[in-house]
Amino acid sequence: MDAMGGDHAPEITVHGAVWAARDFGFQVQLIGKPDIIRLELQKHNITGLSLPIIPASEVIEMDDHNPASSVKAKKDCSMVVGAQMLKQGETSAFVTMGNSGGALAAALLHLGRIRGIRRPAFSTVYPCVSEHGFCFVLDIGANADCKPEYLYQFALMGSAYTERVLGIMNPRVAIVSNGEEEGKGSMLVQDTLPLLKSGPFNFVGNVEGKDIPAGLADVVVTDGFTGNVVIKLSEGLAKMLLDTIKSEIKARPLAMAGAVLAKPAFTAVGKMLDYREFGGGALLGVNGVVIVGHGRSDAYAVRNAIRIARQAVESDVIGVIKSGLGA
Amino acid sequence: MDAMGGDHAPEITVHGAVWAARDFGFQVQLIGKPDIIRLELQKHNITGLSLPIIPASEVIEMDDHNPASSVKAKKDCSMVVGAQMLKQGETSAFVTMGNSGGALAAALLHLGRIRGIRRPAFSTVYPCVSEHGFCFVLDIGANADCKPEYLYQFALMGSAYTERVLGIMNPRVAIVSNGEEEGKGSMLVQDTLPLLKSGPFNFVGNVEGKDIPAGLADVVVTDGFTGNVVIKLSEGLAKMLLDTIKSEIKARPLAMAGAVLAKPAFTAVGKMLDYREFGGGALLGVNGVVIVGHGRSDAYAVRNAIRIARQAVESDVIGVIKSGLGA
Repeated sequence: MDAMGGDHAPEITVHGAVWAARDFGFQVQLIGKPDIIRLELQKHNITGLSLPIIPASEVIEMDDHNPASSVKAKKDCSMVVGAQMLKQGETSAFVTMGNSGGALAAALLHLGRIRGIRRPAFSTVYPCVSEHGFCFVLDIGANADCKPEYLYQFALMGSAYTERVLGIMNPRVAIVSNGEEEGKGSMLVQDTLPLLKSGPFNFVGNVEGKDIPAGLADVVVTDGFTGNVVIKLSEGLAKMLLDTIKSEIKARPLAMAGAVLAKPAFTAVGKMLDYREFGGGALLGVNGVVIVGHGRSDAYAVRNAIRIARQAVESDVIGVIKSGLGA
Repeated sequence: MDAMGGDHAPEITVHGAVWAARDFGFQVQLIGKPDIIRLELQKHNITGLSLPIIPASEVIEMDDHNPASSVKAKKDCSMVVGAQMLKQGETSAFVTMGNSGGALAAALLHLGRIRGIRRPAFSTVYPCVSEHGFCFVLDIGANADCKPEYLYQFALMGSAYTERVLGIMNPRVAIVSNGEEEGKGSMLVQDTLPLLKSGPFNFVGNVEGKDIPAGLADVVVTDGFTGNVVIKLSEGLAKMLLDTIKSEIKARPLAMAGAVLAKPAFTAVGKMLDYREFGGGALLGVNGVVIVGHGRSDAYAVRNAIRIARQAVESDVIGVIKSGLGA
C-alpha cells in the first residue's frame, strides 16, 4: 500500500490498510515516510496485525502535471519503491490512491509490461443495469491515441479480469462506437472489429453510449480518450442530476417533507453509484497486480482496493492474461 | 417541415406544424404524401393558418441503415424535396424528425455546404449547470473521424449559432479532452489547440467530461465519435438514474408516500432534461437552415424545432458563419 498517495494520505491510506489487514487477515506493507506512518498507526489498535513499514523518502504529489519526469527524478518515492518491490517479488500487489500518471510511469519504468502487451490500460468498474449491477470499462485514460492491436489486447485483458477478479463468467465484450450497426464507427473502431471477432473471448459487437449504463456489455473496450470522457462525464452528470434533484426538493417545503420519507430509496441509489465498493481500478498490462484508486478515496475505498488486489493475486489474473496472449 | 420523418410521422409532425403555424403566425410547408397529410390536417382546426402541402412521394425510413444510398435512389423523398426547396429559395428552413443520416445526405447532395466549410456537423443543446441552463455541443455524429480544421470550423459555427440563435453573448468555446491541462489530449486535440487559440471566438481551453454538465463551456467542440458517445451516454445514464430512483422508491411504501409530496421537484428536474424544449439540433455547415430533431419527438418538440428554425433564419446565422469564414 502506497501510504503517501491520494488527497487524504497518509491518514486515510493507513486507516484503510489497517482495516484490510484486520478484515482479511493478511499482511499489508505500508510504503512511505516511516515517522509519519508510525504516527498514523498509533491512532489504531493494530494488535496482532501485520503492517510492516517500507521506507520511501519521497512522494509524487497529486497535482504534479508531469508525473512521468517526477518518477524519474524521485528515485525513492513510494510509487517507485512499490513497483520495484513487485518486480523483485517482495510483495504480491501494489495499491495506490495517488497520482495515476505517476503510478503508470513508475510501473512502466520499474515493473515493465507483460511480454507481448503493447500498452497498459487503466480500468474501472462502472455501475449499470445488468444482472451483476456493473460492467468493466477500459482504457479510461492511459492511451489517448490507440491502435487496433491495443484495443484487442484491452479486450483480452478486460475479459480475463472481469471473469477472474469480478466473477462474471464468459463476460460479454463490446467496443464503444457511434452506432450499433457494424458499418458505424471511427476508422479505429472499424479496423479493430476483425481482430475482436477473432479473439478468444465473448465478443458481442458495438455498443453506443446509452448501452453502457443499460448493461449491454460486461467488458466495455475503448481508447483512453473516449474512455476518460465516458467516466468523467458520468461522474459529472450523476452529480449534476442528484444535486439538481436535491436543490429542487429543498426549494419546496412539501417536497422536503416527502424527501425525508424517500431517503432510504436515495441511499440505495447512492450505494449503487458508490465507487468505493470496488475501491480502485486495475492498471492492466503491467507485469504485476497494480490497483489505482480515486485520489479522493476514503478508508473504506482503500480497504476495498486492497481486497480487489487480493482477488487479482489469488485468481492469478496476470498468468491468465499471459496464457491468453500465447493463445 | 418534413411531414414524413420521425417515429410518429405524420401524426406528430403535422400536429407540431399546425401548433407552430398557430403560435408563431407564419407559413409552414408540409412536405410528403398529400393524401396522408390532408387526413392528418383534418384532425385540427386550421382556419386562418397557412399550411400548404408540398408533394413528395417517397420516404427515407427511420431504420434505414444506408440512408446515403437511399437518398440517391429515392429522388422524390421528402428530405430531397426539402433540400431542393432550400437550395432554390422556395423555403427559408427545413425541419425534419427523420433519419439523421438521410438528412445529412440529402443536404450534402441537394443543398451543398457553405463555401469554405470542410464538413457539416450535427449539434444539440445539452442541459448543464450554468447561468443559461444549457450548452451547445457539436459534432454529435456527422464525422466519426475529424481533422483539426474541421474542429476549428465547428468552433466557429457553434459560436455563431450559440450567440445568434440561442442568445448567449460571447459564448465560451472549449474542446473536449481527457484532462484540463494543455499537455493532455489526443493528437487530434493537441493539433487543434493552436487553431482554436487563433480563432475569432472566445476560446477558453480544454474541458473534461465532467465539465460539460458542470457548465464550464457554452460551446463544446468535439469530433463526431466522441460527441455521439457523450450525447447517447448522457441519455442512457440519466434514464438509468431516474429509473433506479423510481424503482427504489416504489419498493418502499413510505418512500412512495414521500415521492408523491416530492413530485413537483422531480417534474422540475424532468423539465430541465427535456430535449423537447429546443426541439432539434442544427445541421451546421450546409448552405441553409436545416434542423434535425429526435426521431421520437412529439408534437411539442416539432413545434419548438420550427421555432428554432425561425430564430436561425431571422438571426441570419448562415450569413454570420460565412462572414466568420472570411475573417
